[in-house]
Amino acid sequence: MCGIVAYVGERTAYPILIKGLKRLEYRGYDSAGIALINNETYLYKCKGKVKDLENIVKGKEISGSIGLGHTRWATHGEPNDINAHPHQSQNGKFIIVHNGIIENYSHLKKELINRGFSFKSDTDTEVLANLIENIYLEKKVPAELAVRLALTKVVGAYGLVIYCSDEPGQLIAARKGSPLVIGIGDNEYFMASDATPIIEYTDKVVFLNDEEVAVIDTEHLELKNLHNDAKTPQIHKIELSIDEIDKGDYEHYMLKEIHDQPTSIEDTFRGRISMDHSKIFLGGILDVLPKLINARRIIIVACGTSWHAGLVGEYLLEEYAKIPVEVEYASEFRYRKPIIYPDDVVIAISQSGETADTLAAIRLVRKLSDATILGICNVAGSSIARETDAGVYTHAGIEIGVASTKAFTAQITVLTMMAFLIGHRKKLIPDSDYLELVNALTEIPDKMREIIKNEGFIKDVANQYTDVTNALYMGRGLLYPVALEGALKLKEISYIHAEGYPAAEMKHGPIALIDENMPVFVLAVKDDSYDKIVSNIQEVKARNGKIVAIVTQGEKTIKKMANHVIEIPACHRSLAPLLAVVPLQIISYQIAVKRGCNVDQPRNLAKSVTVE
Amino acid sequence: MCGIVAYVGERTAYPILIKGLKRLEYRGYDSAGIALINNETYLYKCKGKVKDLENIVKGKEISGSIGLGHTRWATHGEPNDINAHPHQSQNGKFIIVHNGIIENYSHLKKELINRGFSFKSDTDTEVLANLIENIYLEKKVPAELAVRLALTKVVGAYGLVIYCSDEPGQLIAARKGSPLVIGIGDNEYFMASDATPIIEYTDKVVFLNDEEVAVIDTEHLELKNLHNDAKTPQIHKIELSIDEIDKGDYEHYMLKEIHDQPTSIEDTFRGRISMDHSKIFLGGILDVLPKLINARRIIIVACGTSWHAGLVGEYLLEEYAKIPVEVEYASEFRYRKPIIYPDDVVIAISQSGETADTLAAIRLVRKLSDATILGICNVAGSSIARETDAGVYTHAGIEIGVASTKAFTAQITVLTMMAFLIGHRKKLIPDSDYLELVNALTEIPDKMREIIKNEGFIKDVANQYTDVTNALYMGRGLLYPVALEGALKLKEISYIHAEGYPAAEMKHGPIALIDENMPVFVLAVKDDSYDKIVSNIQEVKARNGKIVAIVTQGEKTIKKMANHVIEIPACHRSLAPLLAVVPLQIISYQIAVKRGCNVDQPRNLAKSVTVE
Repeated sequence: MCGIVAYVGERTAYPILIKGLKRLEYRGYDSAGIALINNETYLYKCKGKVKDLENIVKGKEISGSIGLGHTRWATHGEPNDINAHPHQSQNGKFIIVHNGIIENYSHLKKELINRGFSFKSDTDTEVLANLIENIYLEKKVPAELAVRLALTKVVGAYGLVIYCSDEPGQLIAARKGSPLVIGIGDNEYFMASDATPIIEYTDKVVFLNDEEVAVIDTEHLELKNLHNDAKTPQIHKIELSIDEIDKGDYEHYMLKEIHDQPTSIEDTFRGRISMDHSKIFLGGILDVLPKLINARRIIIVACGTSWHAGLVGEYLLEEYAKIPVEVEYASEFRYRKPIIYPDDVVIAISQSGETADTLAAIRLVRKLSDATILGICNVAGSSIARETDAGVYTHAGIEIGVASTKAFTAQITVLTMMAFLIGHRKKLIPDSDYLELVNALTEIPDKMREIIKNEGFIKDVANQYTDVTNALYMGRGLLYPVALEGALKLKEISYIHAEGYPAAEMKHGPIALIDENMPVFVLAVKDDSYDKIVSNIQEVKARNGKIVAIVTQGEKTIKKMANHVIEIPACHRSLAPLLAVVPLQIISYQIAVKRGCNVDQPRNLAKSVTVE
Repeated sequence: MCGIVAYVGERTAYPILIKGLKRLEYRGYDSAGIALINNETYLYKCKGKVKDLENIVKGKEISGSIGLGHTRWATHGEPNDINAHPHQSQNGKFIIVHNGIIENYSHLKKELINRGFSFKSDTDTEVLANLIENIYLEKKVPAELAVRLALTKVVGAYGLVIYCSDEPGQLIAARKGSPLVIGIGDNEYFMASDATPIIEYTDKVVFLNDEEVAVIDTEHLELKNLHNDAKTPQIHKIELSIDEIDKGDYEHYMLKEIHDQPTSIEDTFRGRISMDHSKIFLGGILDVLPKLINARRIIIVACGTSWHAGLVGEYLLEEYAKIPVEVEYASEFRYRKPIIYPDDVVIAISQSGETADTLAAIRLVRKLSDATILGICNVAGSSIARETDAGVYTHAGIEIGVASTKAFTAQITVLTMMAFLIGHRKKLIPDSDYLELVNALTEIPDKMREIIKNEGFIKDVANQYTDVTNALYMGRGLLYPVALEGALKLKEISYIHAEGYPAAEMKHGPIALIDENMPVFVLAVKDDSYDKIVSNIQEVKARNGKIVAIVTQGEKTIKKMANHVIEIPACHRSLAPLLAVVPLQIISYQIAVKRGCNVDQPRNLAKSVTVE
């Protein structure tokens, strides 16, 4: 994780860096720091957020027009001033900001200590700074070569920007695993972990590829790989507007993004559903549709919230497309000696398209097999989008709240469209049913609007549970992943230990936790397993658990049993996850706000998990 | 869940019932009750355990030689005196004990209320009692026919014993879904949910099959199905000794069962590994071995702890037998419109062999496909053992502690042997490696003994964490399911909200929970993912979490980072789950004891989950 921003050009770097770091705070906010170069080097850093850094810098020298900035999600060493980036090499020749993990840092550190280096911080990044300096001084090579030589010795992931005081006016950027974007202006360049710090200055960007190094001064961008082969920079035009990254009148990005969902789902539909609702087009997977239709198995790899979306996809693809689906934690899949057949299709789901474990998983698939690999990403041009054979963008718009909301519903929307499309092409869904399903899908945004209109009531319910220390979530079938997602939301932003369970599993252990202090959020809409979930509610009730049930409008039975019910509009049973998750998002948000938690920047987390 | 015991014969029923109920308390202990018939009917029942019932009965009339007893795990209605079984029909003609759930009880209840019945309790069982009485009175048929007619109207599961006061001297038993065993003595019959209440009186038993009804008096056992077709009782000889159900010098069954593990695993081996360790024989699956060798996919269905064993099996079977494996919650699998191919092999794992969801899952497979179905059960003659095509008994000996320990390690042992055997037969494991693997497996019991010898130290570590309210467990690869199992043990018996995670997923949400109050139990033995888990430990450490690490003997790096380390002997990396789980079992046990929890009978739980 961590966010990097850097500038070289003719303006004062400081405001560009600070504004950029604030945009990147979703990537980590354990500490922040900048280095500004104006003949002299000025280094400012501290534990905490970018605004703490601003306080420290007040009144200090900030006139440099070259600068590097960093906002940190701690991996090695606790978040404090010393461990904050930028890091300097022992003799001060190199200044470096780093996103990623150097896995063999402890081995490298020992070697450097033997060579007389000493270390101020516990970080892997300082090791890298000294490794570069060591090579630079011993081999007497240009900084750029020293960086490349050092990187060949490194195991792990990095997005890097490096400054060498012997070669002023120049920055060196490099990437492996962690993303890095270079914005191209007029006689100025911007480097950042994503495009958000760049968009108000230029829309021309170059995405660094793995093991590429860029040497940049005010006038030139030179691109090469670690072995010094020259590369031609591919210039992309980005279409991101500042409005999208503004939270408008909302108190938090998360709340805005919850409210965005009816519209963001419409954006996911846009151009993909015919006017008469008789057809779904998914242009991004058109070429591989025969592979999907003939797939003997689909393997979905993902992490966190995307993994929950994958579970929903499993139910839908199995039911409608009649293809067995396995959903895997990307991190576990990679290390499990997976067996992949050529007629398997692998789908990677990731909002950022940069999730390190997911990216590594598809690279492994590529290495092991000829299976077709698809991506479902939100960020256009991201690594996963680029490294897959085909894919579908979720088009949910930029998501800034660390706890994912609109990306989740957009992912489910894409998976739903895929399941319907494949099922129809396989002639498993007759035309009339297909029309009905697509119709039902297009009605979802308005039904979501109804739920959001009911926000006041949902907030009142949430307010009853702000002091709980624990919570359980349960659902069956398609709503089991929604239970997992509801629990994750609460965990992430309110720090309440919440856990989701398939309702029938409660009896196999978790029900022991139930007493009068334990709220149980139950997804109990009218579907095939409605009667069973009523039985499960009774089992909880018999142990005095408090029940908050998400039910279908007009429901009567559960109303008598539950402490609170939240109604959602009736919808096609296969689309219930899209609606049922919304009240759970609102509940988590409201509880977290009431508890005084920092909703958009929950402790310990980062938006885009680019370390393994 | 719930336990049933009944007696008809010449002895005084009371002591047989009480002793039997105590043996069955593992099935539920929310309330207990008995009915004794001695011309008059005497009904005693109360909230609480069997010993509370004994206190109530003290000094009362207990001379009947016909009796029915029940220990309850509440499904409908909270545990109290009124909801306790036996239940009586409105006019007192029928007395009934029931294990299971009547799913359509609310519909039936409404109908009966319309016909003038009123209800004392909230239970589904009282509905059944009145339904039978209603038919009996309206149709003027024998009790046995009234029972059968009533049961045709019932949706759900039941193990039942019924007494009709108009037909004294006779009991009626019936089963669907929930188990029921009839013990045959000399001029006496015993009915119970399992054989444990019976074994000291007779070793001859009949297992009722689904939709069978038995009409029993002192001299006769008449067996038929719901449609009155006569059935011939199949008499089995059971080999269960009273020693096995005695906890000896141990304070709790769970502790005994943890200590049993080195021996119980040897029992799992016995007769299955050749003297020279060059061969594994699994007689129970010999006939289906070609199916397994040619399987394109294995689907494991299970619940709770058995599901965790299944996840370990997934890693082993994929690695050694190169067969893709899917592990499914039985409850979810059933309702998910699963796609099953004829060359799939389905493995059901259940200690009791009676787990309702797992049983229903294999019945569904049978209905949908020609796939081969295997069982891995501990209880011989159980429903799953009888309804599968083939299987392997775990031979762990009877497990009485509600929190499963030795059944889990025995299940893993069986899955390990299967993976090695199939891999060898498929020539994926060369002879020399096979010998090495089997050798390594046979060394596990002694290594477990070493861990158990270290119990004092583990207890000291546990004692540091008795006051925590929450805990996280993390592992990677084969040790990820062990993390889940460790968390489940703590949850079940200490009521601490513990949750297991694949270590790399922590960053995707749960790490937000970490602060200085959160203990994190980490499985970090020396294996392929050791370096990664060290990184994960550092991420937790950076947020001040407390770390208890299970490590390989002689480990140094983690020792410096963790608050406590518990060493386990080095072993083959694929066998680590068998060892690593033992300290977690001991920690859970010790924490629960120190917290004053009833370890063998944790609140809300039951051993064998025979309701869905």
